Amino acid sequence: TSTSNLPIDGPDASFALGSFGGRIHSQQLFPFPDALDEESKETIKLMIDPFEKFFREVHDPAQSDLDEAISQKSIDGLKELGGMGLQVPQKYGGMELKNTQYGRLCEIIATYDLSIGIFMGAHQSIGYKGILLYGNEKQKEKYLPSLVSGDKLAAFCLTEPSSGSDANSIQTKAVLDSDGKHYILNGNKIWISNGGLADVMTVFAQVPFQSSDSEKVSQRVTAFIVERDFGGVTNGPPEKKMGIRSSNTASVYFDNVKVPVENVLGKVGDGFKVAMNILNNGRFGMGAGMSGLIRMLIAKSIEHANNRVQFRRKLIEYQSIQEKIAKMAITHYAVESVAYAVSNNMDRGIKEYQVEAAISKVLGSESGWNTCDECLQILGGIGYMREANIERFMRDLRIFRIFEGTNDILRLFIALNGVQYAGNHLKELQKAMKEPISNFGTLWDQGIKRSRQFIGISNNEELIENAAPQLRDSASKITQRIEEFGVTVEKLLLKYGKQIVDEQFLLTRLADASIDVYTMAAVLARATKAIKENLPTAEHEQLLATTFIDEASDRTERNLGSVIGKRNLRNFSSYSQIASQISQQEGIATTRPLGF
Amino acid sequence: TSTSNLPIDGPDASFALGSFGGRIHSQQLFPFPDALDEESKETIKLMIDPFEKFFREVHDPAQSDLDEAISQKSIDGLKELGGMGLQVPQKYGGMELKNTQYGRLCEIIATYDLSIGIFMGAHQSIGYKGILLYGNEKQKEKYLPSLVSGDKLAAFCLTEPSSGSDANSIQTKAVLDSDGKHYILNGNKIWISNGGLADVMTVFAQVPFQSSDSEKVSQRVTAFIVERDFGGVTNGPPEKKMGIRSSNTASVYFDNVKVPVENVLGKVGDGFKVAMNILNNGRFGMGAGMSGLIRMLIAKSIEHANNRVQFRRKLIEYQSIQEKIAKMAITHYAVESVAYAVSNNMDRGIKEYQVEAAISKVLGSESGWNTCDECLQILGGIGYMREANIERFMRDLRIFRIFEGTNDILRLFIALNGVQYAGNHLKELQKAMKEPISNFGTLWDQGIKRSRQFIGISNNEELIENAAPQLRDSASKITQRIEEFGVTVEKLLLKYGKQIVDEQFLLTRLADASIDVYTMAAVLARATKAIKENLPTAEHEQLLATTFIDEASDRTERNLGSVIGKRNLRNFSSYSQIASQISQQEGIATTRPLGF
Ligand SMILES: Cc1cc2nc3c(=O)[nH]c(=O)nc-3n(C[C@H](O)[C@H](O)[C@H](O)COP(=O)(O)OP(=O)(O)OC[C@H]3O[C@@H](n4cnc5c(N)ncnc54)[C@H](O)[C@@H]3O)c2cc1C
Ligand SMILES: Cc1cc2nc3c(=O)[nH]c(=O)nc-3n(C[C@H](O)[C@H](O)[C@H](O)COP(=O)(O)OP(=O)(O)OC[C@H]3O[C@@H](n4cnc5c(N)ncnc54)[C@H](O)[C@@H]3O)c2cc1C
Repeated sequence: TSTSNLPIDGPDASFALGSFGGRIHSQQLFPFPDALDEESKETIKLMIDPFEKFFREVHDPAQSDLDEAISQKSIDGLKELGGMGLQVPQKYGGMELKNTQYGRLCEIIATYDLSIGIFMGAHQSIGYKGILLYGNEKQKEKYLPSLVSGDKLAAFCLTEPSSGSDANSIQTKAVLDSDGKHYILNGNKIWISNGGLADVMTVFAQVPFQSSDSEKVSQRVTAFIVERDFGGVTNGPPEKKMGIRSSNTASVYFDNVKVPVENVLGKVGDGFKVAMNILNNGRFGMGAGMSGLIRMLIAKSIEHANNRVQFRRKLIEYQSIQEKIAKMAITHYAVESVAYAVSNNMDRGIKEYQVEAAISKVLGSESGWNTCDECLQILGGIGYMREANIERFMRDLRIFRIFEGTNDILRLFIALNGVQYAGNHLKELQKAMKEPISNFGTLWDQGIKRSRQFIGISNNEELIENAAPQLRDSASKITQRIEEFGVTVEKLLLKYGKQIVDEQFLLTRLADASIDVYTMAAVLARATKAIKENLPTAEHEQLLATTFIDEASDRTERNLGSVIGKRNLRNFSSYSQIASQISQQEGIATTRPLGF
Repeated sequence: TSTSNLPIDGPDASFALGSFGGRIHSQQLFPFPDALDEESKETIKLMIDPFEKFFREVHDPAQSDLDEAISQKSIDGLKELGGMGLQVPQKYGGMELKNTQYGRLCEIIATYDLSIGIFMGAHQSIGYKGILLYGNEKQKEKYLPSLVSGDKLAAFCLTEPSSGSDANSIQTKAVLDSDGKHYILNGNKIWISNGGLADVMTVFAQVPFQSSDSEKVSQRVTAFIVERDFGGVTNGPPEKKMGIRSSNTASVYFDNVKVPVENVLGKVGDGFKVAMNILNNGRFGMGAGMSGLIRMLIAKSIEHANNRVQFRRKLIEYQSIQEKIAKMAITHYAVESVAYAVSNNMDRGIKEYQVEAAISKVLGSESGWNTCDECLQILGGIGYMREANIERFMRDLRIFRIFEGTNDILRLFIALNGVQYAGNHLKELQKAMKEPISNFGTLWDQGIKRSRQFIGISNNEELIENAAPQLRDSASKITQRIEEFGVTVEKLLLKYGKQIVDEQFLLTRLADASIDVYTMAAVLARATKAIKENLPTAEHEQLLATTFIDEASDRTERNLGSVIGKRNLRNFSSYSQIASQISQQEGIATTRPLGF
């Protein structure tokens, strides 16, 4: 992955990666990033009302859900708003929004209709994003204007029947024609959003590749811009789904499609990188969207809790309801802080954000799901009815933990990036230890402190110094967790070496620790800002932050403890044994209570 | 509630209640209950195939879901199977099944279609259950035969717009007519399952009640058998819902309905008790159903994990997938053990089962939901498609945590019953302490052991003695948790006194502890039985049991710690503060990152 070649601790250094090495890189979070200049803020501010108005007056999400399609009226409305080319430079007709500006709109969209959000995102966040990121000038000029106006629709075609998470294993093939001017494209893609509607597609296919140092021809993933008009492009019927029903999802078939060589996107053989970077680049939007949605769900919950009376009291007077509402609010603060930290960092040109973006996606999609579930529970029976407009969000939300990288795969991605970072770091340390003039060797046994001392940089006061005085305790908790994190990862690396990549029981827990640690730091930075700026909401934000950090810190301690605790390791091996028996039995392997 | 008048520690004593007092009442669980005689087992065994066949060959759940109705063919099929009168005595034409037998069928029904399960349950598990439990001979003879045959359909009408969890607050009124022969019934019920179809309804209404010692007329809930044919009974259109779409849910309106006095069910003024006991009596069925459904979901998950290849390996070879599968299997073992423990205990006439039945409902409905969610996740994109037949279960499952007592209310029910039991117990102890001949007073400070010593019964070796030798460690963990449970509840009672009823932060955690403790004990008993009987699956069951108990014991320790821990109590008060600010703001009370 990309981290291995990067400087370990530059000024842009990733906070999330650093924590795997027990290091605190606070530059990305302190002061809480705010990358938009006044003009950019003014621009996006002016877009909020028209977008709100569109969703309140033009677009009918409940009806689209029933129709399993988006009305022409809604599509026209979106086009008028510039909604089909939000991040494209103005010279191609787009709105040229920065990521943070785009994120603010994602909040609105997700508040009303996730399904139209997917329609829009499949088009611009992944569909033609490749052209924006990797296209040459000619490709941009040719394709962007009609995509931006919405006259043409885009889609992103990666997934295949035998290739989902493992994108490198796709079977679709593109072979250079004898004339040298075209590739002949053959293959089947499935579950493509906008697949039944798109005119222009970013398609990934294997291209035979003769490397200079070998006789053997290998296959390398390559990205292509494919027009439906090339001929040979067909699609299946719209899939029937749990949710996001108005978003068209369809198989797309390529049958001897002639794709001009000019339509290779990026370099031949670079397609996997292109695909991953498109996804990395778009992930922040989900965090922002989820934060908007959670805000709406809280409003809905509190409206009910403030008004519904049972047992002679308003629901909000009951502690269990208070706990649910408070947890929603704390979650919202976490999701929103992370989403805006990531998009602002991207906007100020920081390149090392892919782990943070993955964290934002996992945190956002799971928080959205859980909050919606609790909102429905607070509403009770009414929440289960279509008219309450919650069950639709619940159905729609379920896909967010699966697509654009399943949350399980993203957890592995977070942990493996982190562990690799720490591994590189450890190698340097080990090299340093071998030098006779260094007497680091004697420090090996000093436990919790050694990582810090090894590094030779006592930078671990950074968080405490940066935090508002009222948040020092919280900052010191995070600092302790990061030190433990570094020590834990070091132990694991010494114990498992490279085999750590297969230790998913451990990796998923490291990922959870990483998600919590990064989120705690983002929340700390945000609340610090509120306090330093004397915002009227500062006290409330402080309460959200301290409560979140207290609980997340405990969780992190448990997660870190579990990857080295004997009892946990025994239970992990029990999981494997149990699963293996279930696997052999192809189901439950116990005797029924009645015997039959 | 009912516990206050019951002997605290009779031979039937409830395990769950006992644990709140630090006591181990193992009679209900050791040996693992098995109440059916051979003949009863043979009967139910013979019913399995026909029911399976009905679901595989006659009934089409996916189509019913789309139609939002159950086909006549399916209803006829159910009638033929005797499926409309499963627990009614044979003299009224029913199948006279015991609870455990009925539970085994619930497993099958839930495996295929939860929605038809609600149709059946609304009819017999709540709709006419009141007639079975409280009806006089005349009422039974008049109503049961046609309900059992399915010629007539039943419904249970309790909920009203302003009265859900708080059933005592219903507004529907029944006033004795001047002729003294009829009650005149007026009111509106909502969300009544089978409400648009039912011919015979159990309806709850307030009846003016002149108590002997007071001038004032109070209102007392009373149950009535109401026929649609009485006139004045109408219903609203079928509600559009997230799931269980083929189960009819409708409002039912009573407009000056003339109900003969003979149709009072139970005594005038006893309606609340009637309603609660119908619900208590039917709750075990959900646990059994969920256990069947989880079994199916595991088979579905493992089929996919055994076959799907990504990154050149079958999914089942990855530890994260193994963990998911193992947790599903452990959960299944827990849910199944509890469900069968409860139904068997009911069948052998144990009266003190309402807390255990509530535990079974909460555990079952949450486990079903979580397992379905993980199954969908393991299947990835395909799981989101209607054709995979998982999303339907997910939608259907969501209601199980809401109806027949929301899980939140049931948690309060579990905890309050337990605390009340422990309170009565404590009072006795305090009385004992005042007697001069007793020197118990000196024991007050002995910490963890004192409950046991107080009681004067060193019965806390019971679990360890009853457990199979291989499970002694697990038994001793449960024993420790129960001792801590008793001490913790005692502390809380001394600290909060009667005010404990409002301390929901604490009560919900006590409920979680209670659910875990009871489930651990049930699992211990079941695995002990497997070991003692030398079942071929004994080793596997032992592994499931030890892993579950290890993890549940940790959770219990945390839950018990959290109700007295200073840091937790501070966070609880933060929840209240945060919620109060959200409540005042009617939504999120922070400043947006962009300021707008
Ligand atoms: C509504 C919808 C819209 C979509 N839109 C698009 C689109 O526009 N363009 C596009 O290209 N694709 C699209 N997809 C596909 C989507 O990106 C994939 O579903 C997703 O990548 C997961 O792949 P999969 O479903 O094949 O699951 P798999 O990769 O088969 O994974 C199945 C399960 O196994 C787990 N797993 C896989 N590998 C491992 C491992 N090594 N270790 C541990 N666990 C593992 C996964 O986490 C998951 O839980 C869409 C899908 C849906 C449902
Ligand atoms: C599909 C469906 C079928 C149904 N079928 C029937 C039927 O056949 N017959 C029938 O009579 N009813 C039926 N119901 C009604 C069902 O039993 C109620 O929805 C349920 O009792 C909850 O009541 P409620 O929805 O009014 O929620 P409320 O009681 O208003 O509760 C709302 C929320 O507040 C919480 N809450 C309430 N009181 C407290 C408290 N004191 N402390 C803390 N939290 C509290 C609840 O847990 C819940 O989360 C059905 C409902 C549905 C949706």
